[in-house]
Amino acid sequence: MSTRELLSAPPSVVAVGASLLSEGMRAQGVDVTDVQWAPPADGTSEPLSRVVADPRRARANATAVERMMAAGAELIDVRPAHEAVGLERGHFLHAGPPIEWERMSGPLRGAMIGAVLFEGLARTPEEAEAELARGTFTFEPCHHRGAVGPMAGVVSSSMWMFELTDPASGRRSWCSLNEGLGKVLRYGAYEESVITRLRWMTEVLGPILRDGVRATGSIDIMAIIAQMVQMGDEGHNRNRAGTLMFMRDVLPAVVESGASPADVAEVVRFIGGNDHFFLNLGMPACKLLTSAGAGVPGSSVVTVMARNGTDFGIQTSGTGDQWFTGPANTPEGLFLGDFGPQDANPDIGDSAITETAGIGGFVMATAPAIVRFVGGEVPDALEATRLMYQITTAENPRFGVPILSFRGAPTGIDVAKVVETGVLPQINTGMAGRLAGVGQVGAGLVNPPAECFEGAIAALAEQAEDPVRIA
Amino acid sequence: MSTRELLSAPPSVVAVGASLLSEGMRAQGVDVTDVQWAPPADGTSEPLSRVVADPRRARANATAVERMMAAGAELIDVRPAHEAVGLERGHFLHAGPPIEWERMSGPLRGAMIGAVLFEGLARTPEEAEAELARGTFTFEPCHHRGAVGPMAGVVSSSMWMFELTDPASGRRSWCSLNEGLGKVLRYGAYEESVITRLRWMTEVLGPILRDGVRATGSIDIMAIIAQMVQMGDEGHNRNRAGTLMFMRDVLPAVVESGASPADVAEVVRFIGGNDHFFLNLGMPACKLLTSAGAGVPGSSVVTVMARNGTDFGIQTSGTGDQWFTGPANTPEGLFLGDFGPQDANPDIGDSAITETAGIGGFVMATAPAIVRFVGGEVPDALEATRLMYQITTAENPRFGVPILSFRGAPTGIDVAKVVETGVLPQINTGMAGRLAGVGQVGAGLVNPPAECFEGAIAALAEQAEDPVRIA
Repeated sequence: MSTRELLSAPPSVVAVGASLLSEGMRAQGVDVTDVQWAPPADGTSEPLSRVVADPRRARANATAVERMMAAGAELIDVRPAHEAVGLERGHFLHAGPPIEWERMSGPLRGAMIGAVLFEGLARTPEEAEAELARGTFTFEPCHHRGAVGPMAGVVSSSMWMFELTDPASGRRSWCSLNEGLGKVLRYGAYEESVITRLRWMTEVLGPILRDGVRATGSIDIMAIIAQMVQMGDEGHNRNRAGTLMFMRDVLPAVVESGASPADVAEVVRFIGGNDHFFLNLGMPACKLLTSAGAGVPGSSVVTVMARNGTDFGIQTSGTGDQWFTGPANTPEGLFLGDFGPQDANPDIGDSAITETAGIGGFVMATAPAIVRFVGGEVPDALEATRLMYQITTAENPRFGVPILSFRGAPTGIDVAKVVETGVLPQINTGMAGRLAGVGQVGAGLVNPPAECFEGAIAALAEQAEDPVRIA
Repeated sequence: MSTRELLSAPPSVVAVGASLLSEGMRAQGVDVTDVQWAPPADGTSEPLSRVVADPRRARANATAVERMMAAGAELIDVRPAHEAVGLERGHFLHAGPPIEWERMSGPLRGAMIGAVLFEGLARTPEEAEAELARGTFTFEPCHHRGAVGPMAGVVSSSMWMFELTDPASGRRSWCSLNEGLGKVLRYGAYEESVITRLRWMTEVLGPILRDGVRATGSIDIMAIIAQMVQMGDEGHNRNRAGTLMFMRDVLPAVVESGASPADVAEVVRFIGGNDHFFLNLGMPACKLLTSAGAGVPGSSVVTVMARNGTDFGIQTSGTGDQWFTGPANTPEGLFLGDFGPQDANPDIGDSAITETAGIGGFVMATAPAIVRFVGGEVPDALEATRLMYQITTAENPRFGVPILSFRGAPTGIDVAKVVETGVLPQINTGMAGRLAGVGQVGAGLVNPPAECFEGAIAALAEQAEDPVRIA
């Protein structure tokens, strides 16, 4: 807005904190935008001041989000984890920041037990658990290999993974194939039906998708995300349209792959019967997006948010691979069957990479039907997205939210804005049972703990450059 | 709202016409709902009074919409028109009310020429046109056979049709298979590529879908409509999610049908490449819905809105098969390529059956991205739906609009409300070129002419019963 426009236009006020003031102005017909605000937490004022005063920050954050928004994500292959990310037998990937067996929550332990059984490294769950506790096997975050995993995010060497690339950088990212909902490994279940399904996914689903994807050449996953946010999907807990568009794109080549019609039909039924199938394609696409913004000195933009069921961890562009963690909160939402709040495990999974990339909970406004899955009312979904503009750096024109007149998705969480406003990123997520073996108990809403952002602001402050003083 | 609630709740005012009054109340914090209103057209006051005073009307309208909202629609077969609706060679169905060759507009003539060529009843377009003008062939509205056809809606005996049934009543409805956009028969194009595509649809697409549908048993089209209105489709000009869900449901059986993989892959590419494919399934589902409400004596609910490119015609529940017509308006909207308003034909097609059933333009609020196709701004889409509640009888809970907190689609246009308020039904539609052979030129918004409703109110008034007088 030019100065002349500013002077001739009706006043528009951004009110921080003092809602009585804004109510008074609203009564006088002034256009008021309330900005949620709470005083910065104890001990964060000084590092926050240093980070905000860092002369590199504005440019660094702009660079980070520009790179993020320019990233592409194309599915180019489907193959076993030992090929895709060089995963050794007995070594297991998991969601979130690093964690040892002793501190793992129930669903992560359950998924590890299931993966050990699936790999034939133990004959019974008891034996698997004993070997896991004894330290026979090793663990590593998915993120450390450029991969992501929903919920427990456990990947073993024989499991098949989607392989995506960002054509701009050549960077790659990976994710396992989605098993569906309910009693599934990623929610901590490991009963026989879980292992049987994983075997079918390895023997039939993976190879058929590999042949289909290779024959297709590549499938533009970022373009599907851009479409799905115009079709009621927010890309974290609603992936219906995304799943259907992926089927549309891969099926012609799958049909012509030479696979038996019975197997192809089973693949179509499996994917078509699982509205969440696309999540495991959207997540590595989001990982490619946020990775493109990593490593910009002085940038306070968040590049990873991930949870292992015990800790919530974040990484920022300016601080590289360093994790800043805090205790994971427990989601609140809607429960399946007879499950209730007492059954829910704390927040778990790498799927918050969707919010880190500006979709998921950040574009709930575009998926109002999500409230039937995660709880709340439709106006809450709109409000959640509006609030996220307060803590982000840019609006991604590629992910336009139709109901907000195609306003771009709020993208690039700024640690400084989070600490300054006290507004925490809005994540919507599945809920795992807190006991190993239970599986999914519901879906809901959750925020990261403030500690992650306080840790990150302190680290950013340590590296901050002093403001340039004019002599 | 009970009387006690009414007295204790804040006042809520419905303001008709006098907007200055409502602005004054709004300034005082009163919740005001503006109702658009214009004085009834000349000559309608007396018949309107008679219809409104008809003691049967409230109950009759409630009965009509209850039956409409209870209707189901399942796809049970795909077969040639000569089997499906007994169509004879040389007899052609078309959209809208009855019309003879002399009064047909360009796109309807073009589609007739193409259909004559496709049936091998002439060797050149010139010969086809001469035979058509000579009266060699006969014409009949799709609606007279319980069928519906988008745009020109021309169906000839060899073309394949979807066959849907309402399980509650056993009633059936039919529609041709969608050809895609651009140079296609239903937009009045008849060049060689159009005929070639129709041949492939008859030789490959139709039989493969028949085998898939028969092996599947039935596909619940009404359930897909309920889902698609939660996925950014309004079911008239956006059918993306609907098309994908139909593919999901029919493909497993298609894959196992024994058809060659090359043909199946071509079918998947054809359907997957045409976001409008589902329109020809949604339309007969809507026809089954509105037909369920037909024939209730004293009901002023609209059961058909249809256009032949020259006339717009409606039917009402209380007046049976009688058409009430007026000159079709020309849509306003967005144009393809170099086309402009001068290229557009007046409103054409049976696709306004979607609005008659409460979707299409009536639920534009659920499909804000539609404005990129038909023109206007996102708030207009919300406003269009809100306005339609003023002229409808009920809200269909099955078609919930998420952004309006799952408010049901405005369903059952009441002729009396249309005449009383002057608010005309909102239709969004494709635009055909006004010359035969051109094809599609754009998409936009249009209203029926008021004459249809004035004619209907007069006919309803003639049959109206006198109010019961208490002696």
